[in-house]
Amino acid sequence: MLIQLKQDIQLDQKAAIVAKASELKYKTTEVVTQAGHYLVGTGKAEFDVRAIGNLPGIKDIHIVSDEYRLVSRKWKVNPTVIDFGDGLQVKEGELTLMAGPCSIENEAQIEKTIQHLVANNVRFMRGGVFKPRSSPYSFRGLGLEGLKMFYDMCRAHGIKIVTEVMQVSQIAPMEPYTDVFQVGARNTQNFNLLDELGKVDKPVLLKRGISGTIDELLYSAEYIFSGGNEKLMLCERGIRTYETASRNTLDLNAIPILKEKTHLSVIVDPSHGIGIREYVEPMALAAIMAGADGIIYETHEKPEEAASDGAQTLSFSESERMIWKMRKVFALKKELA
Amino acid sequence: MLIQLKQDIQLDQKAAIVAKASELKYKTTEVVTQAGHYLVGTGKAEFDVRAIGNLPGIKDIHIVSDEYRLVSRKWKVNPTVIDFGDGLQVKEGELTLMAGPCSIENEAQIEKTIQHLVANNVRFMRGGVFKPRSSPYSFRGLGLEGLKMFYDMCRAHGIKIVTEVMQVSQIAPMEPYTDVFQVGARNTQNFNLLDELGKVDKPVLLKRGISGTIDELLYSAEYIFSGGNEKLMLCERGIRTYETASRNTLDLNAIPILKEKTHLSVIVDPSHGIGIREYVEPMALAAIMAGADGIIYETHEKPEEAASDGAQTLSFSESERMIWKMRKVFALKKELA
Amino acid sequence: MLIQLKQDIQLDQKAAIVAKASELKYKTTEVVTQAGHYLVGTGKAEFDVRAIGNLPGIKDIHIVSDEYRLVSRKWKVNPTVIDFGDGLQVKEGELTLMAGPCSIENEAQIEKTIQHLVANNVRFMRGGVFKPRSSPYSFRGLGLEGLKMFYDMCRAHGIKIVTEVMQVSQIAPMEPYTDVFQVGARNTQNFNLLDELGKVDKPVLLKRGISGTIDELLYSAEYIFSGGNEKLMLCERGIRTYETASRNTLDLNAIPILKEKTHLSVIVDPSHGIGIREYVEPMALAAIMAGADGIIYETHEKPEEAASDGAQTLSFSESERMIWKMRKVFALKKELA
Amino acid sequence: MLIQLKQDIQLDQKAAIVAKASELKYKTTEVVTQAGHYLVGTGKAEFDVRAIGNLPGIKDIHIVSDEYRLVSRKWKVNPTVIDFGDGLQVKEGELTLMAGPCSIENEAQIEKTIQHLVANNVRFMRGGVFKPRSSPYSFRGLGLEGLKMFYDMCRAHGIKIVTEVMQVSQIAPMEPYTDVFQVGARNTQNFNLLDELGKVDKPVLLKRGISGTIDELLYSAEYIFSGGNEKLMLCERGIRTYETASRNTLDLNAIPILKEKTHLSVIVDPSHGIGIREYVEPMALAAIMAGADGIIYETHEKPEEAASDGAQTLSFSESERMIWKMRKVFALKKELA
Repeated sequence: MLIQLKQDIQLDQKAAIVAKASELKYKTTEVVTQAGHYLVGTGKAEFDVRAIGNLPGIKDIHIVSDEYRLVSRKWKVNPTVIDFGDGLQVKEGELTLMAGPCSIENEAQIEKTIQHLVANNVRFMRGGVFKPRSSPYSFRGLGLEGLKMFYDMCRAHGIKIVTEVMQVSQIAPMEPYTDVFQVGARNTQNFNLLDELGKVDKPVLLKRGISGTIDELLYSAEYIFSGGNEKLMLCERGIRTYETASRNTLDLNAIPILKEKTHLSVIVDPSHGIGIREYVEPMALAAIMAGADGIIYETHEKPEEAASDGAQTLSFSESERMIWKMRKVFALKKELA
Repeated sequence: MLIQLKQDIQLDQKAAIVAKASELKYKTTEVVTQAGHYLVGTGKAEFDVRAIGNLPGIKDIHIVSDEYRLVSRKWKVNPTVIDFGDGLQVKEGELTLMAGPCSIENEAQIEKTIQHLVANNVRFMRGGVFKPRSSPYSFRGLGLEGLKMFYDMCRAHGIKIVTEVMQVSQIAPMEPYTDVFQVGARNTQNFNLLDELGKVDKPVLLKRGISGTIDELLYSAEYIFSGGNEKLMLCERGIRTYETASRNTLDLNAIPILKEKTHLSVIVDPSHGIGIREYVEPMALAAIMAGADGIIYETHEKPEEAASDGAQTLSFSESERMIWKMRKVFALKKELA
Repeated sequence: MLIQLKQDIQLDQKAAIVAKASELKYKTTEVVTQAGHYLVGTGKAEFDVRAIGNLPGIKDIHIVSDEYRLVSRKWKVNPTVIDFGDGLQVKEGELTLMAGPCSIENEAQIEKTIQHLVANNVRFMRGGVFKPRSSPYSFRGLGLEGLKMFYDMCRAHGIKIVTEVMQVSQIAPMEPYTDVFQVGARNTQNFNLLDELGKVDKPVLLKRGISGTIDELLYSAEYIFSGGNEKLMLCERGIRTYETASRNTLDLNAIPILKEKTHLSVIVDPSHGIGIREYVEPMALAAIMAGADGIIYETHEKPEEAASDGAQTLSFSESERMIWKMRKVFALKKELA
Repeated sequence: MLIQLKQDIQLDQKAAIVAKASELKYKTTEVVTQAGHYLVGTGKAEFDVRAIGNLPGIKDIHIVSDEYRLVSRKWKVNPTVIDFGDGLQVKEGELTLMAGPCSIENEAQIEKTIQHLVANNVRFMRGGVFKPRSSPYSFRGLGLEGLKMFYDMCRAHGIKIVTEVMQVSQIAPMEPYTDVFQVGARNTQNFNLLDELGKVDKPVLLKRGISGTIDELLYSAEYIFSGGNEKLMLCERGIRTYETASRNTLDLNAIPILKEKTHLSVIVDPSHGIGIREYVEPMALAAIMAGADGIIYETHEKPEEAASDGAQTLSFSESERMIWKMRKVFALKKELA
C-alpha cells in the first residue's frame, strides 16, 4: 500500500494511520521527499482501501502490489518531470540528448565539445572525472579539480552536466558542481550510495547493472526515491551475455517494459550498449523507436585520441548527423503514438 | 580464398586451379549452387592474388578471411535478392512482412488470416504444421495434410507461405507445398538438415540459435550456401539470457553487425524476441530503425484462443495498426540513409 | 497421473481406464516400452487416486505433477539400471567410466586406445564417426565405415562403444554397430531424432543442450522414454555463459538436482565442461563428489596430434592417473553416503 | 614487470630503477604493503631482465605479462599464508571452514552458533551486521552495536569473525571488531572500497561479482593488494546464468583456474552457490575435490526461523555431518595430490 499524506498532516493523524495499517498487518515506512510525503506499507494481506483511506490527513491511497512501490506507475500514472530551469525538462514526450566524452581530459576538449553541443542545441554534456576502471593501473580521471573546470565552462554556456559519482564521500564535494549525478553499472546495487543520493536535491541518472534485472533496477531506484529524492532517470546500457561480437547486449526489450512499470524517464546509452562506433547510430535510432525518452552517448573531437572508450565514441560530424536523425525519428515516433 | 568460376570452365582448367591453390597451401571445396560455381579455399597462408587469379576459367577471385566465406559481404558487396515472381522480392531496400499464426489450426483460421493479409498487402503468411515442442505431450501440429491445405489456400490468393521444417525426411514431401523453409532456433546447428536444405531450390529462413552467436549463425548459413542453395535469409529472434521479464532478449545489436558481415537479408521476429503482446509493436519498429530488412510476427483472429503462443500474438486490429506504422518507419529509415 | 498397466491387460479394461481418466479431465497417452506399459495422463485437475486406481488391469498408479512424468523419480524411486551383459551395468552405486578420443581416426588409434582401456579396466570407449562441426569445411568424421571398424575392434575386447548419432537416417545403419547412441548438445531438442531413438532397443546417452535448462533436458528424455526406450542416461557437459576463461561452464549444481528429480543415471563430461586439459581431472573428481554416476572424457595417445579437441584431451598417462583417483574418490563417496 | 625492492633501498637507488624502467617504456607504480615493497611496471615492450635486474636495491625482478601482477602466481609461486595467531592460518594445504548465519540476530543466536562451532573445531564464524538488500524495505542488519556483541562473544571463545563491509565509512568503526572483512558480490567492483581496504591491516575475503569474470576478480584483488594489503582470500559464490533451477550457478571451473593464476587462497560458498539446503553438502564436497582451500556456508539453529536466507541454511546437525565429511574429503584430496 502507498499512502500519500497531506502536507499539513498532524502528528496524531499520522499516528492513527500507522496504527490502522498495523492493524491490517502492514508495516509502514515514512518517506519524505522534496516533493511529497508518503507512508509506504509493506505486507501481504489483502485489505479494503476504505478501511483506511478515509482517515484524516490522507491525500490519496493506492494498492501497489509490486515490491517497488514509489517508482511504480501503478500509483503515479503521470510520468515524472524533472525541471532544470531555462525551459529545460527531462520528461516523457521530449527527446533528451546527453553527449560528450567518456572522460574529461582538459580545457580545450571541454571547449570544443561545448561548441559542438551548442551548435546542435544539445543541453546536457556527459563526462567522467572519477572513472571506475577494472585495473588499478589505468587512468582514473581528473577528479574534483577537473569537475570544477567542467562545470564552470558548461555553466557559462547554459549546458548541464552529467557525471559519475562512485562513492558516498564524493557526493558532498561534487554537489555544487554537478547537475546530474550518474550512478554507473558497477554501482547499481551500492545501496549506501543510493541511500545517500536519496538525501540530495539533484537529479540522478541510475544505470542498470552489468547483469542486473529490470526488477533490480527498479528496486535500486526505490532506494533513492524512498531516501527522499524523486528526481530520477533510469538508463539501459546493455547487459552481459555470452555474445562477444558486441561489447554488451543492448536490451531494448527493457524500454517498453520499464515504460509500463514506472513513471520515471528511460534514457538509453547505445555507446556502451553495443560498443562499436559505426553501430551506435542505428542502435540510438532503434532505442527511440522502442520508446526511449532520451539518448546518452559518447562523442569526442578526435575519438582515436580519446583517453578512454575511443572505439565506441563518435566524431563530431558523426554526432551531428546522428542528432539530426534522432530528432527526425523522435518526431515520427510522436506522430505514430 | 573464394574463386568464382566461369560457367563454361573446362575440367582441365579447374584441375589447374585446384593444383595451384594446393601449391599455395589451400585446400579447395567445389561449390555449385543454382546461381554460381565456386571453389572455396581454406588455408592460412597469405598469398598473392595474382599468382592464381589470371588462370583461365576464373571469373573473379577474392581474399576472404572470415571462416564463413560464401555468405560474407567481403566478396559479394551487392545484397542478395530473392525473387518470388509476381514482382515479389526479398531484398535490402524493401520491407518484407511475414505474418500469421504460430500454428495452422484449420481452414477457417487460414481463410481469416489470408483476408487480413490481403487487405493489408502483406505477401507472406507464416504458420507451423510441424511444431517443435519441449514436452512430448503437447500439440505437435497438423502435419503434411495441414500444409497442403495451407499452401493451396494461400496460393489461390497470391500469398507465399513460410513454414518450419524440422527434419531431413520432411523436406521432400514438404517441398511442393512450401515457398520458404523456416529453420527454427532449435535446429540452427542441425547440420544434416542444413546440408539437405542446400540441395533444395527453395528459399530458406534460418533462425539464430537459442543461445547462438552471430558467428555461429553465419557458419550455419555457410552450410546451406555451400550445399548449393543461395536463397537464404537470416532471422534474429531473441537470445537466452538471465533476464526473465521477457521471454527472450531480442538482440537488435545483431542487425547492424549482420548487415555489415553478410550480403543476406536480415528478418526480425519480435513476437518470440520479447514474447509479450503489447510490446511486439515497439520492438518491431525498433528493429526496422536498426536496419532490419523485414519483420516476421504472429497474428491470429482471436489470440486468446490460439493453439499456441497466444500471449505474444497480435489481434488483426493490432496487426493492421502495426503494419501501417512499420511502413511509416521504414520510409523514414530509407529517407535517412 | 502415471498409470502402470499389467502386461496381460485386456483391451476393454484399458478402454475403461482411459474413459475414467477422461471423466477426471485427463487426456491419456499410451506408452509401450521394452520394459513396461503405461498410460500417461496429462491434465490439471486434482483427483482422488481411489477413483481410478482399483480398476482392473492397473498395476500401479502415481500422481506425478512434473511436466515430465515417465523420467520422474516421483513415481519410480528405484534408479534405472541398464544392463550390457557380462556383468556390466550402468546404475547408481557403480562408477561408469567412458573414455576415448573425440574422433575415430584410424585402426592404430583405436587399437592403442583399447589397450589403454583394457589395462585400466574401463569398459566403454567413446569416439565420434559423425562429427557436428560449426564450419562446413571442417573434418566431419569417418562415417559408417569407420564405425564398423570401431565396433568390431572393441567387440573383440569386450569394450562397449558410445558414439554420436546426428540424424534419423543414421539410426538404422548405425544400430548394429553401436552400444550406446549419444545425442549431442546441439541435438538435445531435435525432437524427431528423440522420437526415433524411442523406438530403438539400445541405450541412449542424452547430453544437456548448449544453453539448455535442467527441465528441458528432462523433457527431452521424456520424448525418448515415451517413445518406448527406457534405457536412458543423462549427461551434464557444461553450459554457455558469459565467462570465457573456460570453454563452457560445467554446471555441477545440475547433478544433485537431477539425481533428485529423475531415476536416470547422470554422467558428467569434464572434457567439454571446462575444455582445458590440465583442469579435466579436478572437475572429474568434483563431479563424482557431487554425485555423478559416471564420467565420460577424452583421451588420446598423442593429444597434440588429435584430429579434434586436442586441447582438452588427456594423454594415456594422465588418463591412467585420473582413473585411479576417480575410483578412490568414488569409494569415499559411497562410504560417506 | 614486477620488481621486489629491498627493505633498506635508498631513495636514489629507487629513482635509478624508475628511470631505467621508463627508458624501457615501462611506467612504474610504487606499492608498499605490510609485507613488502614493490615497483609494478606497466608497459608492453619486451625487455631483457638483465638490463635492469642488477641495479642496486632490487631484491628480485619478474616478467609478469598478466594485467594483474601482484596477485599473479607467475612471480610468487608460494601460496599466500594468512596468520591469525593461535596456530590458525588460512593457506593452501589446510581446510579452512567458516560457518554461521546469514545475519546476526541476537545474543542467543550467537551463543548457540559458537557452541556448535567450538564443538566441531571450526575457527571462523560468518555473520552479517550490514546487509545488502535488493529492497529498501527489508531488514538491513543490526549494525555496529550488533558487530561489537558478535565480536566480543566470539573472541571469548577463540573464534574469528568474518563479516561484510559495504562502504568506505564503515571500515574504520568496524576495524577493531572484525577479523576478516568480507566484500560481497555486489561490491566486487566498488573500487573505492577496494582502495580503502588496501590500507587496512586486516584480512579481506573478496567475493566474485554476480556476473563477474575470473579476470575481473583478480583485477579487483589487485586493487586491494596494490593498495597495500596482501592478506587476501578469494571467494567463488556462484554466477548468474539463464538457469533458474538453482539460485546461482556455482562455477567450480573457477577453482583450478584461479589456483593456477594466483597465489591467493580460494574459498567456496556453496550456500549462495546453489541456494537450496539439501544440495549444499554435495557442492561443498565437490568444491573441495576441485581444489578449494576452504568452505564458507550458512548454518543456523533453526533455519526455518532465520531472518534471511533460511532456504539455503543448514541446521546444526546437517552442518555437523557436513563438517565431518568435508574433512574426510579434504584428507583424500591431499593424499591424491
